[in-house]
Amino acid sequence: MTRAGEGRVPHVVIVGGGFVGIYAARALRRAPVHITLIDRKNHHLFQPMLYQVATAGLNPADITAPIRSIVRRQRNVEVVLGEVTAIDTAGRAVELADGTRLPYDYALIGTGARHSYFGHEGWEALAPGLKSLEDALEIRRRVLTAFERAEREPDPVRRHAHLTFVIVGGGPTGVEMAGAVAEIRSYALRRDFRHIDPRDATVLLLEGGPRILPAYPESLSAEAKRELRARGVDVRTETFVTDIQPGAVQAAGWTIPTNTVIWAAGNVASPLLQTLCTPLDRQGRAIVQRDCSIPGHPEVFVLGDAAAFEQEGAALPGICPVAIQMGQYAARAIRSDLASRPREPFRYWDKGQLAVIGRGQAVADIGRLHFGGFVAWLLWIFIHIFFLIGFRNRVIVLLEWAWAYATYQRGARLITEPWRPAAPPDPKAPCPDPSPLPPTGHVPHRS
Amino acid sequence: MTRAGEGRVPHVVIVGGGFVGIYAARALRRAPVHITLIDRKNHHLFQPMLYQVATAGLNPADITAPIRSIVRRQRNVEVVLGEVTAIDTAGRAVELADGTRLPYDYALIGTGARHSYFGHEGWEALAPGLKSLEDALEIRRRVLTAFERAEREPDPVRRHAHLTFVIVGGGPTGVEMAGAVAEIRSYALRRDFRHIDPRDATVLLLEGGPRILPAYPESLSAEAKRELRARGVDVRTETFVTDIQPGAVQAAGWTIPTNTVIWAAGNVASPLLQTLCTPLDRQGRAIVQRDCSIPGHPEVFVLGDAAAFEQEGAALPGICPVAIQMGQYAARAIRSDLASRPREPFRYWDKGQLAVIGRGQAVADIGRLHFGGFVAWLLWIFIHIFFLIGFRNRVIVLLEWAWAYATYQRGARLITEPWRPAAPPDPKAPCPDPSPLPPTGHVPHRS
Repeated sequence: MTRAGEGRVPHVVIVGGGFVGIYAARALRRAPVHITLIDRKNHHLFQPMLYQVATAGLNPADITAPIRSIVRRQRNVEVVLGEVTAIDTAGRAVELADGTRLPYDYALIGTGARHSYFGHEGWEALAPGLKSLEDALEIRRRVLTAFERAEREPDPVRRHAHLTFVIVGGGPTGVEMAGAVAEIRSYALRRDFRHIDPRDATVLLLEGGPRILPAYPESLSAEAKRELRARGVDVRTETFVTDIQPGAVQAAGWTIPTNTVIWAAGNVASPLLQTLCTPLDRQGRAIVQRDCSIPGHPEVFVLGDAAAFEQEGAALPGICPVAIQMGQYAARAIRSDLASRPREPFRYWDKGQLAVIGRGQAVADIGRLHFGGFVAWLLWIFIHIFFLIGFRNRVIVLLEWAWAYATYQRGARLITEPWRPAAPPDPKAPCPDPSPLPPTGHVPHRS
Repeated sequence: MTRAGEGRVPHVVIVGGGFVGIYAARALRRAPVHITLIDRKNHHLFQPMLYQVATAGLNPADITAPIRSIVRRQRNVEVVLGEVTAIDTAGRAVELADGTRLPYDYALIGTGARHSYFGHEGWEALAPGLKSLEDALEIRRRVLTAFERAEREPDPVRRHAHLTFVIVGGGPTGVEMAGAVAEIRSYALRRDFRHIDPRDATVLLLEGGPRILPAYPESLSAEAKRELRARGVDVRTETFVTDIQPGAVQAAGWTIPTNTVIWAAGNVASPLLQTLCTPLDRQGRAIVQRDCSIPGHPEVFVLGDAAAFEQEGAALPGICPVAIQMGQYAARAIRSDLASRPREPFRYWDKGQLAVIGRGQAVADIGRLHFGGFVAWLLWIFIHIFFLIGFRNRVIVLLEWAWAYATYQRGARLITEPWRPAAPPDPKAPCPDPSPLPPTGHVPHRS
């Protein structure tokens, strides 16, 4: 597995098969380099649509593609399924959990971010965030199970706690989750229960700042809030969560009894960056230079959500277009090096941003154009399907959406659990008489 | 939750939302009864296609439908998500894990079967069987992970153990699994790896008896064996497995180094039946009477894989048409009771059986017709899609298959893991100097 210098071509190690890794590898497809692309998972995840899996609209496989398939035809890439534990910048090697050391000439770090609980790491088990497929399936399990528990709960207070869904954080993910949970409640589950009316469920979106979607123009924040309210989401701004316990959330003096909390409030970059021995910002991101490399190590690029890159006085946001452009940029910088040309500095080209609120409703902030409604929603659908990697996924996803839109149904309403060997038989009641006499009549008595 | 006698209509409790439960509930839709349908899962599973999920061909949601959705329009059904721990036939009540007791006038037990390890229950963790969605996802994870491990394994002996797949049991499930694993190896993964050729993988199908598909005519067993061999499956009959350890299987004197074993060798009915206090057969199934009820309790029906019902000198097989017909029969018997008509005895109408070997290849045993090949395969596809519950699933599954057939690809090649809160940051290497000086040049040294 040690390939530095193999055939005399530089060895590029890419850590992370997200947008950074996939787009960097693709942009190096004709470069005279050998690439090793490492990820803990076998699949690339289309994170912008992850909330659709968490809310039972799409299947896990619809928004993923095996990394090996994506780069199959690119002969200079090798894919390694493995966990990187450290990057030894002095020794120029990436270390894996199984003890392997991969020497590199260039390292591209696109390890993304996890949610941050601002020092309350114990909250995670009570309030999962939405970064991985496993997160999404766990949230889907919790949301669907909450309705099932409510259906069987005779006590009205406890029943209402099951039917209260709290989403913490009013950024795009929080808004999308709140809108989608509100729709499950109002449409998909509406006629499925006998003792509860799912429309009675409360969906609360808590935002610490003065408005939701703070990265958008104020007019769009106001429109998003109005549209969420029209869908029955209770939006509360300036409401900081101060504690999460089993069964309740404390926020701005309120105690909210709830069993389902979803965390969309903060990010922290991958802890792997701490092994780079380079300055990090408060969110744990590596403070990179104009060429996205770290100080003293022009051969080490930190990219995407893992990078703190300032442009026009503000750090670039942790969104997918930044990751794609940074991945492509790093590939360009390496090609410049190999051609002995100077590297151009990185510059993010902002094409605008879109956030979905619900069925037929989104907000768009594109240059000077700020608009909401059905057109923004269609734009969101087409852009997202266009960027979905893998043709099969695009067709299936479009079909799933058309179906969901026409019927208000959600196709992936599935509560799954971790696999374990079946428990051994454990009968509860001892048998008084193992073989009772056969019956004489057929019509049973009725109580 | 205690509804016996509610509105004076009899209370029918159905345990299990499989084919028995769904078809029984549907057949009672116009009967003057109140139905409670209980399952541990929120979804009905189309088990005949489960092997497609285990081999990455279909998504979990493609072969499932929420039980609530299936019976949504049927107002006399209430669905309960819960675990039944005992059936108190003397007290006429079903007991749930949460302590609820549900009194019944009629109980329909369709709890199916699990795999049997013939007293070696410890084998299950090493050789999972294929009954639930969780089983299928675990097998998918193991099969795909085996190729990933092989790619990274420098030692040829250990690498070959990763590339050896053993399927135990030559019934329809074993044959389908063997054919599908052989196809993954030969087509879907063929060009995805750099250090291994997935086509080098060994797929072994071990059957203890003298021929595979023992329930089929001999000519079809021979054809299935020939077709599996043509696909590179090593079929070994009269090969009983005597031990399974981590890393190896012992069978008929052979020691086979392997890390992936799939169990398709035997069934045992749900342990819940032991609480019925009625005679069971060797596979743990309740020995039922001509009307599928248990002796002494005409109000308790045991149906589908849970029932031992003899017809023409042999017990009916544990297959889906038997379960459907028994579920419908029990509903008919209840309607006869309510109309004070005598119950007709149950009689299974055998419409034939089909088993898939691989892409474009199946065997069919329909009355006097025994044939194999492409026509049998098309017949299998259309029958299975016709019986898939839920229109959406049919369209999506047909599309997935058309796509897979055209491209040889498998759309659900996804290795997922159980959710757990993320581990706290644990950097490996202490930093010698937290902020090194910025670099002067841009082109890094190369080793």
